[in-house]
Parts: sequence; structure tokens; C-alpha cells
Amino acid sequence: MVGYSFMGATHSVAWRTAHRAFDLPMRPRMAALAGRNAEAAQTAADNLGWESVETDWRALLERADIDLIDICTPGDSHAEIAIAALEAGKHVLCEKPLANTVEEAERMVAAAEAAAAKGVRSMVAFNYRRVPAASFARQLIADGKLGTIRHVRAVYLQDWIVDPAFPLVWRLQKDRAGSGALGDIGAHIVDLAQYMTGDLLTGVSATTETFVKERPLPQASAGLSATADSGVTEMGAVTVDDAALFIGRFAGGALATFEATRFATGRKNQLRIEINGELGSVVFDMESMNELQYYDATEPAATAGFRRILVTEPDHPYMAAWWPPGHIIGYEHTFTHEIRDLVEAIATGSDIYPSFADGLRVQRVLEAVETSSANNSTWQEIQA
Amino acid sequence: MVGYSFMGATHSVAWRTAHRAFDLPMRPRMAALAGRNAEAAQTAADNLGWESVETDWRALLERADIDLIDICTPGDSHAEIAIAALEAGKHVLCEKPLANTVEEAERMVAAAEAAAAKGVRSMVAFNYRRVPAASFARQLIADGKLGTIRHVRAVYLQDWIVDPAFPLVWRLQKDRAGSGALGDIGAHIVDLAQYMTGDLLTGVSATTETFVKERPLPQASAGLSATADSGVTEMGAVTVDDAALFIGRFAGGALATFEATRFATGRKNQLRIEINGELGSVVFDMESMNELQYYDATEPAATAGFRRILVTEPDHPYMAAWWPPGHIIGYEHTFTHEIRDLVEAIATGSDIYPSFADGLRVQRVLEAVETSSANNSTWQEIQA
Amino acid sequence: MVGYSFMGATHSVAWRTAHRAFDLPMRPRMAALAGRNAEAAQTAADNLGWESVETDWRALLERADIDLIDICTPGDSHAEIAIAALEAGKHVLCEKPLANTVEEAERMVAAAEAAAAKGVRSMVAFNYRRVPAASFARQLIADGKLGTIRHVRAVYLQDWIVDPAFPLVWRLQKDRAGSGALGDIGAHIVDLAQYMTGDLLTGVSATTETFVKERPLPQASAGLSATADSGVTEMGAVTVDDAALFIGRFAGGALATFEATRFATGRKNQLRIEINGELGSVVFDMESMNELQYYDATEPAATAGFRRILVTEPDHPYMAAWWPPGHIIGYEHTFTHEIRDLVEAIATGSDIYPSFADGLRVQRVLEAVETSSANNSTWQEIQA
Amino acid sequence: MVGYSFMGATHSVAWRTAHRAFDLPMRPRMAALAGRNAEAAQTAADNLGWESVETDWRALLERADIDLIDICTPGDSHAEIAIAALEAGKHVLCEKPLANTVEEAERMVAAAEAAAAKGVRSMVAFNYRRVPAASFARQLIADGKLGTIRHVRAVYLQDWIVDPAFPLVWRLQKDRAGSGALGDIGAHIVDLAQYMTGDLLTGVSATTETFVKERPLPQASAGLSATADSGVTEMGAVTVDDAALFIGRFAGGALATFEATRFATGRKNQLRIEINGELGSVVFDMESMNELQYYDATEPAATAGFRRILVTEPDHPYMAAWWPPGHIIGYEHTFTHEIRDLVEAIATGSDIYPSFADGLRVQRVLEAVETSSANNSTWQEIQA
Repeated sequence: MVGYSFMGATHSVAWRTAHRAFDLPMRPRMAALAGRNAEAAQTAADNLGWESVETDWRALLERADIDLIDICTPGDSHAEIAIAALEAGKHVLCEKPLANTVEEAERMVAAAEAAAAKGVRSMVAFNYRRVPAASFARQLIADGKLGTIRHVRAVYLQDWIVDPAFPLVWRLQKDRAGSGALGDIGAHIVDLAQYMTGDLLTGVSATTETFVKERPLPQASAGLSATADSGVTEMGAVTVDDAALFIGRFAGGALATFEATRFATGRKNQLRIEINGELGSVVFDMESMNELQYYDATEPAATAGFRRILVTEPDHPYMAAWWPPGHIIGYEHTFTHEIRDLVEAIATGSDIYPSFADGLRVQRVLEAVETSSANNSTWQEIQA
Repeated sequence: MVGYSFMGATHSVAWRTAHRAFDLPMRPRMAALAGRNAEAAQTAADNLGWESVETDWRALLERADIDLIDICTPGDSHAEIAIAALEAGKHVLCEKPLANTVEEAERMVAAAEAAAAKGVRSMVAFNYRRVPAASFARQLIADGKLGTIRHVRAVYLQDWIVDPAFPLVWRLQKDRAGSGALGDIGAHIVDLAQYMTGDLLTGVSATTETFVKERPLPQASAGLSATADSGVTEMGAVTVDDAALFIGRFAGGALATFEATRFATGRKNQLRIEINGELGSVVFDMESMNELQYYDATEPAATAGFRRILVTEPDHPYMAAWWPPGHIIGYEHTFTHEIRDLVEAIATGSDIYPSFADGLRVQRVLEAVETSSANNSTWQEIQA
Repeated sequence: MVGYSFMGATHSVAWRTAHRAFDLPMRPRMAALAGRNAEAAQTAADNLGWESVETDWRALLERADIDLIDICTPGDSHAEIAIAALEAGKHVLCEKPLANTVEEAERMVAAAEAAAAKGVRSMVAFNYRRVPAASFARQLIADGKLGTIRHVRAVYLQDWIVDPAFPLVWRLQKDRAGSGALGDIGAHIVDLAQYMTGDLLTGVSATTETFVKERPLPQASAGLSATADSGVTEMGAVTVDDAALFIGRFAGGALATFEATRFATGRKNQLRIEINGELGSVVFDMESMNELQYYDATEPAATAGFRRILVTEPDHPYMAAWWPPGHIIGYEHTFTHEIRDLVEAIATGSDIYPSFADGLRVQRVLEAVETSSANNSTWQEIQA
Repeated sequence: MVGYSFMGATHSVAWRTAHRAFDLPMRPRMAALAGRNAEAAQTAADNLGWESVETDWRALLERADIDLIDICTPGDSHAEIAIAALEAGKHVLCEKPLANTVEEAERMVAAAEAAAAKGVRSMVAFNYRRVPAASFARQLIADGKLGTIRHVRAVYLQDWIVDPAFPLVWRLQKDRAGSGALGDIGAHIVDLAQYMTGDLLTGVSATTETFVKERPLPQASAGLSATADSGVTEMGAVTVDDAALFIGRFAGGALATFEATRFATGRKNQLRIEINGELGSVVFDMESMNELQYYDATEPAATAGFRRILVTEPDHPYMAAWWPPGHIIGYEHTFTHEIRDLVEAIATGSDIYPSFADGLRVQRVLEAVETSSANNSTWQEIQA
């Protein structure tokens, strides 16, 4: 595994847990964690359960005891690491968004396809696909329970930078993060909407905004710099979007609204998708991730209503592995389910999704959003 | 009152009720109802409580015992009736949308301003402003409880024409209705968003869609035409939008999404607005119209949360007139509150809102939506 | 109508509205309102829409133009007025609880039965039976949708006297009110539970409590008495229960819990009933009175869930008379529906429910609760 | 660890996870799992992460490398194992209910007290105390935010045996399980109510019921017995309660209702507690275990409302160890938190709760419920 902060922690839980919760054909060994700072990496490895440490991720590629590289770094390093790993014949799991640009993503897809020909698997970690309620929604739609889809209504709302005094962390810098709310959380709702509907966006009209244009530099806010003496806080420019809003159309004719923002006061992690079809509707909200709302329009009008399904039954995706009905699972198991499916795909030699190609499709949508936003919100077609 | 179908019925409840629920300075007399069909109008007058009937609305303008004209007809007749009434020195209450075009609305505003100089009042019936929870939300925002507004998220979702076999009623014909979901329900969320924030939209990017392009003609579906014999259902073209989606910006810097549709399966009358400000948020949903969700970000993080305020306290707008706390009121009293304020304004000689100018502002937004939609969703500025 | 405070106001709305909302076989005339204070009664009559005033309710019985007596006074006068009215051949609508004691209620039932033989109708105003969602729940249960009923879980929670400084109003005095939370709101959940299940309680085990034993006398709290000078607030004893809790069993084998309290901080008018049957469950909550939650256990486990039915469809009880789906109605129309059914029963000469006998059954339950509570909570059988 | 079914699985997660999520003073080693069937125990140990296996739990007591015994067996073996372990100087974590009888529980408390004098710790695993939302509710109450407590309203509702064809498993047999819904889930709400209020029940009035008196024997339902041939299903008597309902009083004056049932159709694991105090209220529901509803009555009436607190902030109990705000945790971490606190208590030599004495207090309440139920629901005092 390369990288060991937030995503490194969640992936580690998943690697430790998947073979205990599920009956896997192979048992993962957590061989090595790579990080530039040896000491910090060693501490992380101890905490997270990795056997050894490397200070250069390239060393992982040379180790014969390592079959898979799990990339948990910021987006600017994904392409380099993933391509090198695939060329070295290692399976790759790569955090989302796949890359910071479409060009990088295209190169990664090419590498993934070349590797696939040799039986090497690759996957991009859009983990929300494997929330049982989201998987189940997809299943209902694929089974035709909603009929023709008319509307998708997707938001991903957070509020952690509402305060203008919040510092200029790396996620607010374009060169590291690629984009702001758009790539970080907007990417999730684009992928999830395409996954749940089984359909692809064909065009968007968008606007983006940076509400707070300057923020204190991190060191300033930590009181470590000269500013403490001078009494002046050093400020830096925010170079990514705070919010991105867009309208879209799917190939199948559905209309969609998307909104990703870090300024929705009171919303901590509200990824909410509502899908309306001719025969029914579903609503999913990550803050209540063990539930799915479902409306069945084929019911008589008098007894029809949005029903709150507790997605904790053994019949629900992944849930037979967990607790009895009504006992919920937490956020981290979206990753556990990912690892479970990935290990199974590797063992059985089958394809695994979301693929790098799926990641590229999301990347194209993000690019179209930025293009439209920069171009007076004019409709921007998305390459299939 | 001119017209006596759905809106005629709700306005009649309000005229009958306002002076009983509230202590009004003047007591309205329900003098006359106008309708082209004398018999049907008489039946309606009896049911709804009107003293007399006229078969030509112009007759109302000549009656000295009539001080106010309440226009409840489809949008294509609003301008003619309202302007004539104002010129005849009658106060006017006009159903929304104010008109079917900006040009008509502008002439109505001119007439309203000329009349106002002579003490004649005019009001457009955006009744949702007077849902107590919506009024209270406006009050919280006006008091600064939300700070700078960052986001508005407004939908008006219905599902009554999801079935392609639903007939081609007048609301689906452009010459009568002006537009579809956009003017009928989109107008409400535009007005309400501007009212609650106390701010105006400055531009939009939009798309609209007609999912079902042809529908059975009403007579055909009733089986009265020759089609019964031939076995062929006569179809007609749907000439209005089924759904309208747009992104907007407010003068104060807030971003907004709007969606009005009649294809949101399971949503019967979901007018929902969420507003996020720097200091807090509110959420209003017409399906639970006696509630307001409020998030106070000045609370400590550990006890902050969206609170469900039952807007049934005597301190809440209009509610001292009704029942004890926890006993809810119904949809029709949005009109009762409208009449209450209108009668008071007439009695005290003060201005009343929403004015025709407010109605025109909404009309300009609707026009901008249609222009943007027709123009590749390109951003369309809205005249102040 | 006798009495004109809270209940008088709601009944008046109903008398004014029923024939406009519904197609009634007879049109009620609001002939006279009776109240001891002539001036106050006249003001009330003007506000509420009554044609004349009497200062003695007995005068109503002598008027030939009056066919029905509507009793909206406190419980201590119900028996006297109702029996006299029935003997005078007037139909009677009597507020709940039917009486303050079982003995009074028994005499009222006897009078009602005697009157019924002559075609004179009587009804006790348990208005919540005619909330459309409650009627619909009953209908589902009667249709067998829930199968054998196992559990009833009923609470009626208010909080208007949590503050010990709240004065000693008549509802806190046993001689006027009969009992406290038990008779005022507990009576409602007993009646509603029996109505919805179509079954009768056969026994209870109970406890009651008066948390605040003394309260300021009303005049003292208004600052009008000598206490203002002396600085001492005059206190009086609270002689009714603040809360009543009981466990019960139904004839059909279901177990039940009941709780009525005025000390549930934050609950304004939460009358909530959940009923679990072998095949499904329903939940009704008066604070969201236009909704019914329904769980259908015959659904596959994966798609089963409590569904929120918006009880605003034309197929729902009473709702065809009101607004389009999704447009809710208010508390007062529980009374409108009552009047509608009562007028229809009178016109067609049919029985009307809840009858005085139904009121007596509730009274027997309340008595059993008090007996059990006074007797160490020992199980108390209820006479059929 | 003794026992390895449902509770064994959850405890194992906790033992594997606590030192990774939290910074523990000691790192637990999962030394051995005991089970009578060597093969099954070995498989379980492999799956759950235990290093070795013993077929007799007594062997664990003799191993010097084992410091703590975790008892996950049915209630009938708790006393024997726990007492022996404590006498052997091993710390003990014992699943709830503490025992099947008060007498057993008393002996266990005596053993625990004797052991405590030598620094040996014991704890009963009422895991719901360590749901962060429940801990936080306790904290609010302990801080006086609710003032004097007036009401507790607790239910634990499940529906897994609604179907009469569900077989006669060990949980439905008195000799193994001690009691039915009462001891299994009723014990949880009794403990949680006492924990959250910081108060003790002083008496109860109760009723219990077995709705389905006979069920198919497990082997019969599995089709393994002779019944398959004969076509007759062998039935056995259900010897425990299906449901237990009781009213209670707390030492501090609060009134309470409790209901534990396995017949609440549609409720999968609804442990719900509402507590009303003079100054506010809280509501907790295990099906949404990352949320707490809180009503602050010191707010102005116009802005007061039940707020939904997402208990995922770093300021909330235990949550700093987990994910960012809005990312929820699952059921199993109630055990992780338990282990964290237990390990810390052992390392620091401090007391740990719930103690065996707390478990005994719950046992006394359960006994009082059974006594009252058997005695015509007569009020039953509970020994302090």
C-alpha cells in the first residue's frame, strides 16, 4: 500500500477484515506499506497492521512477495504509480479520482488494458458502489423495477470549510488535488449515478464557485511562522472550486442535477441520490447508509408510499456476512466489500469494476463540468 | 371572483374564513362569482358561498358593490382582466403565474403602478409565501440567523402525468398554460427562493424536456369521439415542458439549483427548499408544511443538528389565530393568510406583497430559463 | 351549540364547512349558541357564525327550529345536558370524554338508547377516528392486512404544564375535569386503539402520577389579586393526574401499552399509535396526521419496509372532498368529517359511531385505570 | 474466549480492532478460544483470529499466558465459568444477561468483589452503553441538560419469530435461556435506561405473554427426523416469554414504560429510548445508532425542536478514533469500545462498568417483572 493517511486507514481495515467476514478463495497478506518518512511509515504500519515498510514505492514493484499495489496517495501521483505497477505485473487498486486530468486517466486505461491481456487486474476505488443499499438500488433498477429512468437528483454536501479561517490544506490546492469539491466528492456522485442507473452521462451544463478566495496558510494557522510575531496571518489563494453545480443528461433520456459543495452548513457527509423512473423511485443517503427508500408505483395509490428498507437482511448484497437484521454496519465496510470482490476477481480471473475505464468516464464528466463552467455554462458534450 | 375551479375553491375558503380566524379591520363580502356557463357558475357560487353570479367578468367591474377582483382563471386571461379591473379602480388579487409572457406582465405592472397612485392595491397569489413555516424561515434569514447565504436547493416535484396515457389537458397546452412544469410549479420555487432569501436571481443556465411528446386527446380518452368505433385513440402534441432544471446565481453570491417536474414518481407535491448560510441552514418541505428544519451552526458541534420545529406555536407567523401547539393546519390556509394580509393592507392603505412587480421578476426568470434552454444552456442574465 | 371555547371553535368550523366540502343530503343551519355570559356569547356567535344566542342551554331544547344539540362544555355538565336534550327529542353530539364518571355515562347510554328508538341520534366526539389516516388504518386492519394483532403501542404526549409555574386552570381540577391527562388525552388513545383494531380492552394494570402537586391559582398568576402586594403567590392543590401509564390486553389476545402525559417535554400533541399484526404493522402520529406508516410483511424481506403513505389520495377516506394529492389538511377537519357523517346518518336514519355506548366503554377503561392505580397496579378486569 | 457463535464473533472483532482504533496502554493478544467440538472450534479460531483452541474452558484458567476470560456462552453457564475464572485470578468479561437467576448473579457479584480486592476486574457486556450516542445522552443528562427526569419510554422490538413455523431454538427454552424477550432484549433496555438516567428502578408492574405456545422442533424443521416420512411435524413447548411489558418507577420519581418483544412485525432491532426531563428530552434508536435526537426546552419556543445530532463529531464519545464527521460506524464497535475501556481499566487499575453489581441490579428487575406478571401484575418493589 502506498500512502497511509485517511484512505490508507480505511483500506487497511478492509485488508484486515475481508477474509474474516467473507469466505475468500485467497487470504490477503499485508506485506508492506510505502511512505517517504521511514519513522512515520513504521508507526503507521504498526497501527494499521502491515508487515514491513518501504520508503520508496518503487521498491514495492521489485518485491516478488507483493502481488498487488494499493494506491492511497493524492491524485497527482496516481498515474505514475499505477502505470509502473501494472507494467511490473502487479494488480492495482487505485483511490479515486482515477487521476487529476483526462490525459493521465487515458494513459492509465491504456496501461490497464495492456496489463489485463496478461491477467493483471485493476480497479478504481469508488467505494460507495459497495454500500449494500447502493448495490441493492442498482439491482432493483437493473431488474426493471423502476422502468425507464426520468430523473436523477444527486448531491454531495459537506461543510468542513464554511469557516473562512479554515486553513489552506492540500485539498484546496489545484496542483495537488486537481480540483476541489468537484473531484473529491463530485466524482463520487457522478460514478454512483452512472452505476446505479447503469447509464452514462452524455452532456452537462455547469457552474463552479470559490466562495472564499484566500485562506490562512497552514503553517500560519499553526502559529509556527513569523506571522505570530508580526501579528499578520499569511494568506494563500484557494485554487480549487468550493462548489460545483451541474445539470446533465443520460444516454437513456434521463435528466439529472448534481451538486458537490463543502459549504452546505449542517451537512457532514450527505451523499444523497434520488432516482425517479416510470415505475418507481429510490432514494439513498450516505448519512443513513444502511437504508434505502423505495417507492413502488405499481402498488395501488392508497397503499403506495416511500418505504424505508433497512438494508440489513441476508438477502441484501454483502449482508449475509455481517450481523442479524437491524444491526447496522459502518462506513469502512464499503472498502471491505471492495477488497472482497477484488480478491475474488483475482482468484477467479474475472473482470472487476469499477475499472480504470469507468474511472476515465468519470474524469471526462469532471472535465466537461470545468469546460462548461469556464464557457458561460454552455452545454458540453461528453465523449462516450 | 373570476373562475371557480381548483384555485376558485381555495380562494373561496379563504374569503369565508379570514375574518373568522383573524380580527380583520374590514369584513369581506363575497359578492359575485363570474363564469361563462351560467348554470355551472350558479352551482359553484352556491357551493363556495358567493352571493350572485355574472356570466361576463366585465360585469363585475361595473358593479359599485364590488371593490376587489380575484382572478382565478388560466394565465392567458390574467393580463386582460387585471388591467381592466385596475383601470376600473378595483383592487386585484391575481393567481400566479402573473402572466404567460414577460410582455403581458410588464403591462400589468404598469397598470398596477398607475392604480397604486390612486390607492388601488394589487397582489399576485404566490400563496406559499404565507405558509407559516416559510414566513418563519424568511424571518430567521432576515434576522441574520443564517449569515451570508451560500446555497439554495429548490425542487418542486409532482408525478401526476408519469403515465403516458394521461390525457392532453389544458395545462399541457402552451397557448393556454404558457408553459408546463416551469410556469405552474417552477414559478413557485423561484418566488419562494427569492422571498425566503430576500435576494434576487441574476442569471440562469437551464434545460427543459418533454418526455412524453404525444398524449390522448381528452375527448378520446373519455371515449366520446369516433375513435371508440375505429379503435384508434386520437393523439395530440404536448406543447409544454414536462420538466425544467436550472442552475442560478443570486445577487448576494449564493448558488442555486432548481428543478420543477411532473415526472418524479412518488412525489405528490414536494416543494422542498434548502438554504445554507454561513451560520446555519433551513429546510422546508410543503408535504410537511407545518414543520421547518433549522440548523444553528453557532451551537457547539456536539449538540448541533437539524432540528424539526413544529411551526404551530403562537409566536410563529399567523399561528396565534389557529389551534394549540402541535395541532396542524392545512394547505388552504396559505390562501386564508393571503386574504388576511390583503384585507389589512387595503384597510390601512399600505403596500402588499408579492406585488405585480414581484410577479414580473418571476416571469423574467422563467423567460431566462426558456431562453437558456433553447440556447444550448448558455448562461442567461436576468434583468433586474 | 353549548359552550364556545376551544371545542366550540373547532365544531363551528365543521358546521360551517361540512356542506361545502361534501355533498350533504341536508344543509346544517347554525341556529343558536348558548353561553351564560350574554355579551361574550354574542361575540363568540358573531365570530363563529351562529345566528342567535341563548344564555341558558335549556332554551335551546324548547326551540322548534333546533334539531340537534352540540355539547362543547367541560365533562361535568355533559350528562345533564345530553339527557335533557335527548328527552326533548334533539339529536346530540357530545364532546369527549362522554362523562366524568361511569355512572353518568351509563345514564347517558340509557337515554341514548331510549331516544334511538324514536329515531333520535347521538354521537360522542372522538374526532381522531376521522383523521383520514386513522380511518384508513382501521380499514386496512378490518380488511385483514395486518392479520392477528399482537401489539398496540399508544402514547398521547403533551408538555404544556411542565413548568411548575403554570397556573391551576380548570383542567387541573378534578371536580371540573374528572381526571387529568387520563380523561383528556388518555381517553383519545383508548378509543382510537379500540377503533383501529376493532377490538376491546379486557383489563389493565396502571399507575398514575401528579408530579407537581401545587400550582399558583390562576388569578394569582395574572397578578390581579392581593398576592401581588404581599409578594406571596397563592397556591392550590392539583387534584388530577399529570400522567397515566397502563398495560392492557385486548379480547383478541393483543398486548398494549398506553401512556398519557402532559410532561413529555418537546412533544406538543404527539398522539402516536403503532399496531403490530402477524402480517404487517401500521403507525399513526397526529403531529403528521396526513401520513400513515405501513409495513407489509408479505413482501419479500429484501424490499419490505415501513412505507410513508401520504393519505391525500382520492381513494383515501374523506380525501376526495379536499385538495389534490400531496396537499394536506389540518386538524379542524377531523370535526368536519364528523359533522359530515353525523348529518348523513340523521338524513338516512342510520346509526352513527362512536355512539354513547362506545363512550361508555372508554369510560370503563378509564375507571379501571384509576382503580388499578389506586390498588397497587393490580390487574383490573373491564366489564364488556 | 469461551463460546464462538454470534457474540463470539462480535467480541473477536473488538479484540482485533480496539488497539488499532485506539491508543491502548496494553495490546491484547487473542490467545485461545474454547469450544467443546475441537474441529468447529478450530475453524472458528481461524476465522476469528484466535491463536489456539481448548476443548474445555477450564483449561484456559490454567494457562499462565491468559489474563482474561471472555464469556460468550448462553446464560446458564455464566455463573460457573465466571466464578471459576475470578477465583483463578483471571479478569472476566461476561456476556449479558449476567445470569439466568438472581441467586446466580448474587454469587457472581460476591466472586467479583472478592477478586476486585486482589485487583482482578470484571465487567458485564451491556454493549449498548458504549454506542457513542447513548454515552453522549448519558453525558447530557449527567450534565443536567434535561433537569429532573419525568419519563422514560423504552422499547426493544424485534420480529424474528412472528412466523409460528419458526423452530424451537435454544433461545425459546427456559432451561438454556432463562427467559425469552425479557432476558435477551428487555435486559438491555433496563440497563440502558438506568445507565442513561443515572438512576435505578424501584418497582414494576408487568405482564408477559407467549403468543405461540408450540413450535416445530429444530430437527423437524430441518427435515432430518422421522417426521419427514410420517408427514407429521414434531412440536415442542415454548417455555419462555415472547413479549414482556412493564411499567416502572425510578428512585428519582420518573415514570417509565418498557416493552420487549419478538413479535413487532417490521421492527428488526428497534431499541428505542425516549427520556423527558423538565429542561429537555432525548431519543435514541439503535436502528439509527449514529444519531441522537435532543430537544432543548430552554430555547425560545419559536426555534425549539427535536434536533437530529449526527453523533460522529470528534467531540463525541469514542468518535475521535474513527472517521470524519458524517461517516458512520457499525454495531460491532459497541464491543470495540467496551474492550478499549476494559483494557484501559485493567492497565490503570481502575474500576470498570457495567460491573457485575450492575448486572445483578438488572437481574433483580427481570425477576420483579416475572413476579409481578405471575401475581396479577401487582406492583413489585425492587431491592436496592
